[in-house]
Amino acid sequence: MDTATEIEGVLAGRRRSLARLLSAVEAGEEQTVREVVAALHPHTGRAHTIGVTGSPGVGKSTLTGQLVAEQRRRGRRVAVLAVDPSSPFSGGALLGDRVRMADQVMDDGVYIRSMASRGHLGGLSWATPQAVTVMDAAGFDVVVVETVGVGQAEVEIASLADSTVVALAPGMGDAVQAAKAGILEVADVFVVNKADREGAERTVRELQGMLDMTADPDGWTPPILRTVASRGEGVDAVADALDRHLTWASDGPHRQARRRTAARVQVREIVLAAVRRRMRGLGDGEALEAVLDDVVARRTDPYSAADSLLDRLGTETS
Amino acid sequence: MDTATEIEGVLAGRRRSLARLLSAVEAGEEQTVREVVAALHPHTGRAHTIGVTGSPGVGKSTLTGQLVAEQRRRGRRVAVLAVDPSSPFSGGALLGDRVRMADQVMDDGVYIRSMASRGHLGGLSWATPQAVTVMDAAGFDVVVVETVGVGQAEVEIASLADSTVVALAPGMGDAVQAAKAGILEVADVFVVNKADREGAERTVRELQGMLDMTADPDGWTPPILRTVASRGEGVDAVADALDRHLTWASDGPHRQARRRTAARVQVREIVLAAVRRRMRGLGDGEALEAVLDDVVARRTDPYSAADSLLDRLGTETS
Repeated sequence: MDTATEIEGVLAGRRRSLARLLSAVEAGEEQTVREVVAALHPHTGRAHTIGVTGSPGVGKSTLTGQLVAEQRRRGRRVAVLAVDPSSPFSGGALLGDRVRMADQVMDDGVYIRSMASRGHLGGLSWATPQAVTVMDAAGFDVVVVETVGVGQAEVEIASLADSTVVALAPGMGDAVQAAKAGILEVADVFVVNKADREGAERTVRELQGMLDMTADPDGWTPPILRTVASRGEGVDAVADALDRHLTWASDGPHRQARRRTAARVQVREIVLAAVRRRMRGLGDGEALEAVLDDVVARRTDPYSAADSLLDRLGTETS
Repeated sequence: MDTATEIEGVLAGRRRSLARLLSAVEAGEEQTVREVVAALHPHTGRAHTIGVTGSPGVGKSTLTGQLVAEQRRRGRRVAVLAVDPSSPFSGGALLGDRVRMADQVMDDGVYIRSMASRGHLGGLSWATPQAVTVMDAAGFDVVVVETVGVGQAEVEIASLADSTVVALAPGMGDAVQAAKAGILEVADVFVVNKADREGAERTVRELQGMLDMTADPDGWTPPILRTVASRGEGVDAVADALDRHLTWASDGPHRQARRRTAARVQVREIVLAAVRRRMRGLGDGEALEAVLDDVVARRTDPYSAADSLLDRLGTETS
């Protein structure tokens, strides 16, 4: 792959170049990612980025698929990044979501990509913002990032979008569970999916009760919307709410503030990834292994071990 | 609090000292945590550490409570660390799990502690191993770490124990969802809880099917056990399986290898926390903010911003 050529291709909206650069970002080879991000970053900031998160089983993928279809009906070009936390250990990914959303893939105004999260390269936070950069630079009007909303990193990533949708369903991943997972605070729009099921009204009421406790009279009030995504019901109202939120956020300082937070996380994760890489490289790993031996044998403690590694990080280069 | 006195207290098995040092570890003031870990680390390594993880709603807390009761019946002293991922944003924690397990707290051989995970201090991985160190040094025979098994960090933490239990339930957080969340690979013991519900046998079959694909003929074969934790059914078999796994792992290199991985993660997280702290401190934060302004305004790209911060990290002290 000639990176410079593919960068030009993405800026010209070529689908094959988009696929190649996203693969490169996912693979994580540093020099390539660095070149891609440096070249594309100036061309970003136009897309409406939308995070969609929620517990497993609430129907996020179906909702995302329907939201994509609705955005298409509104004449917008849409890219979806489905961040799949499967297997930080094996690297394997199940293709369920990808298959379910595959009917969208044929449409030229839609691009869908699953990305496995990579525990060992520093997690979700590391690759996702770079992938969003590529999609944004490719000229999509809307970029949707779908994550499982339970882990900290997963919730954080969804919350960095211009607008964040938190999806719930009756019974599964209910309001109390969502509160425990810390996802309520990040919502700009709540969706109670599977709203035709028993318990839906109770979930809406619980959610309303929690919102009433934390409402900011001068801020955005997240609407609570009911959908049956499997039949497409209520999805137009979700798209309407997202449009309203974007207008509200862009009129005030909110969109800019969110993007500043996103930049903070992106830069932080690049720095931390560099430190991780330097740690692995210490004396071809031998220094690190010797220190770990000492920790396990209780000859040294973890803080002293960390100190000795930090000293070396400052003097050795990556 | 006089840290040295409380350290002596923990080594003497005093409950009040244990509570104080765990609060100190959770608060995260660096010098205190460092002193605590350095002093207690040599006294650790005796406890059987057990991770319990699974999707929200599978009944992890109930299962943990019953497992604690069963361990007590076997004459063992047990500490539980319930890592609650609630609200990295507000810092607030719901007390559901703590309340549900409260009937165990009165028993002198049991100590239960909830700990909110702290997104801004670097997440779960940062505080949990230090809390386990304190509990291990306090002389408990068994230390159970309960985490929500969806996020990467949460799964990783559970997987660092000597033995890891992955809990599932029919319908909620089923085998496919668990596979997507990457938790199947970390299991030494599978528990299908709520086994009296419809769909339990299907969950067991799905799980068996996935295991058959990945079985290692020379390794440990994770048993799949059925429980109804709310009535205590099947929990003795879970304790038996954990005992068998500990014996198996201790006879070979497995327990040592697991502890080496745990040391690696602990040291890595201490290093990364130090780097995060240094980043926040750069020029009283002004340097960082100026760089972020440039990224948002597209005057610089995230990689160049990270480079400039890395340069400063090497030259400024924390």
